Amino acid sequence: MINRLIEKIEKTQAPIVVGLDPMIGYVPAFILDKEIKEKGETPEAAGEAIWKYNKGIIDAVYELIPAVKPQIAMYEQFGIPGLIAFKKTIDYCKQKGLIVIDDAKRSDIGSSSAAYANGHLGSVQIGNTKCYGFDADFLTVNPYLGTDGVQPFIDTCKEEKKGIFVLVKTSNPSSGEFQDREIDGRPLYEIVGEHVAKWGGDCMGDSYSYVGAVVGATYPEMGKILRKIMPKTYFLVPGYGAQGGTAKDLKPYFNEDGLGAIVNSSRGIICAYKQEAYAHFGEEGYAEASRQAVLDMKQDINSIF
Amino acid sequence: MINRLIEKIEKTQAPIVVGLDPMIGYVPAFILDKEIKEKGETPEAAGEAIWKYNKGIIDAVYELIPAVKPQIAMYEQFGIPGLIAFKKTIDYCKQKGLIVIDDAKRSDIGSSSAAYANGHLGSVQIGNTKCYGFDADFLTVNPYLGTDGVQPFIDTCKEEKKGIFVLVKTSNPSSGEFQDREIDGRPLYEIVGEHVAKWGGDCMGDSYSYVGAVVGATYPEMGKILRKIMPKTYFLVPGYGAQGGTAKDLKPYFNEDGLGAIVNSSRGIICAYKQEAYAHFGEEGYAEASRQAVLDMKQDINSIF
Repeated sequence: MINRLIEKIEKTQAPIVVGLDPMIGYVPAFILDKEIKEKGETPEAAGEAIWKYNKGIIDAVYELIPAVKPQIAMYEQFGIPGLIAFKKTIDYCKQKGLIVIDDAKRSDIGSSSAAYANGHLGSVQIGNTKCYGFDADFLTVNPYLGTDGVQPFIDTCKEEKKGIFVLVKTSNPSSGEFQDREIDGRPLYEIVGEHVAKWGGDCMGDSYSYVGAVVGATYPEMGKILRKIMPKTYFLVPGYGAQGGTAKDLKPYFNEDGLGAIVNSSRGIICAYKQEAYAHFGEEGYAEASRQAVLDMKQDINSIF
Repeated sequence: MINRLIEKIEKTQAPIVVGLDPMIGYVPAFILDKEIKEKGETPEAAGEAIWKYNKGIIDAVYELIPAVKPQIAMYEQFGIPGLIAFKKTIDYCKQKGLIVIDDAKRSDIGSSSAAYANGHLGSVQIGNTKCYGFDADFLTVNPYLGTDGVQPFIDTCKEEKKGIFVLVKTSNPSSGEFQDREIDGRPLYEIVGEHVAKWGGDCMGDSYSYVGAVVGATYPEMGKILRKIMPKTYFLVPGYGAQGGTAKDLKPYFNEDGLGAIVNSSRGIICAYKQEAYAHFGEEGYAEASRQAVLDMKQDINSIF
């Protein structure tokens, strides 16, 4: 799957992932109101509205980008109907040829991590039948529990030819509280980065490992150091745009081959129509606004090479 | 909710939580086969079988214990039908008067943590209607992202009078890989423990905070130190039984008032009928075996006071 991701990045010339993180406030009224009229003020209406909103965006941008990253929290908040919308979104994106990074930041002790790996990337055996759950291509994973909490995800990736991105340095303001604390003179995120490089060592695609890392765009100095610690690790880089990261901050996240990183934008793309620059598209043109925002982001990111 | 948890612990004289972590291999054949016959070898059959298996156990033990802890990974592995079984299990347990600790170990940056908090403990606003998702009483939370990843859960707890347990020292063998690393001469789990005590300081019930901590039974020396760092924090203690923790290891997790900790057992209870000691109950008597295992665990745990 890491080979396919790189191939798609090269083909689209866009090291970009669109974060499908639909807050209910982002959904244009003409979509939401129709569902509420049919289904009442229910999670079912919200789930269906979110799915339709996503579909509009996917249809408008799928040819421009290699991958999407639905944030499962935004679906999980609506309970089962939200998760049905999450599953529909994954299935539709895959049908459109997009690679799906399931941003669930899961982790647990071994047996529970194995269950998460089965549910998000792999399958379960029911009688003699192999049944797939969410069946995403990549999953984000939290490292706090250590190797035996991460290994089951790697095992599933090997079996299913999929991938993970392990949280190393996150983009949020408090990320330093534990991640930056020094251990033998070096911050925890570097120690975690070394583990990611080690875990990924025997999980190599052609040029990069399918054990990747999440490294926030908001800390470029740290990105530079982590790039050196993990030369064969693909970085999933959140924090560009709405969270404050700029294109010039992103240079150190890439290797000299122009590869090694894929930059996420969520609000900046899916909610573009609410920004001044794209307001002329109007609510009805929200998907076209997203398309234009992708084109602009692509130009912005490619300006660093 | 922390007051209600303590009240129920005192009433049942059982600082015990039963982990409802159903692997498909635990479900007796007479339950699973019936569902497969009706629904085929499908996730729907697995979900329904798991729910019926849980229901049998809940009916047999609900009067003996204060709380249950369903591990969502075990449900999520079956996709949507598994999550429907998870929701049915939560609803039924609450109906039976049990407190539900949703073991999902969620965490993310602020806006996504808020969405998880809404989905698992709180509600979302759809039009003018407040809609609840999984609506558990407590949720487990991963601290790796720092305060702004944890705060949204605390905010929801304040609003909804619910609670969280933050991972401090987990019970798995690799937990030390990052959690035990020394920062200014002290292990990371102590630093996290101090943050939990601080976060919980203005979230007090009558005698304990509703911001609790997960502290594994498998590391009693660390439990002793953490008890001192977090005197007003309730501990959720996994790792007893199948993972290796024994009753005599558990003493330091409790305060002198006999409170402050609730000990989880999963496999040891829900899969008791497969153990030699309870084999005489047979598969058909799996729920009765679980009941006996709870009674035995209660006696074992209470022997330390």
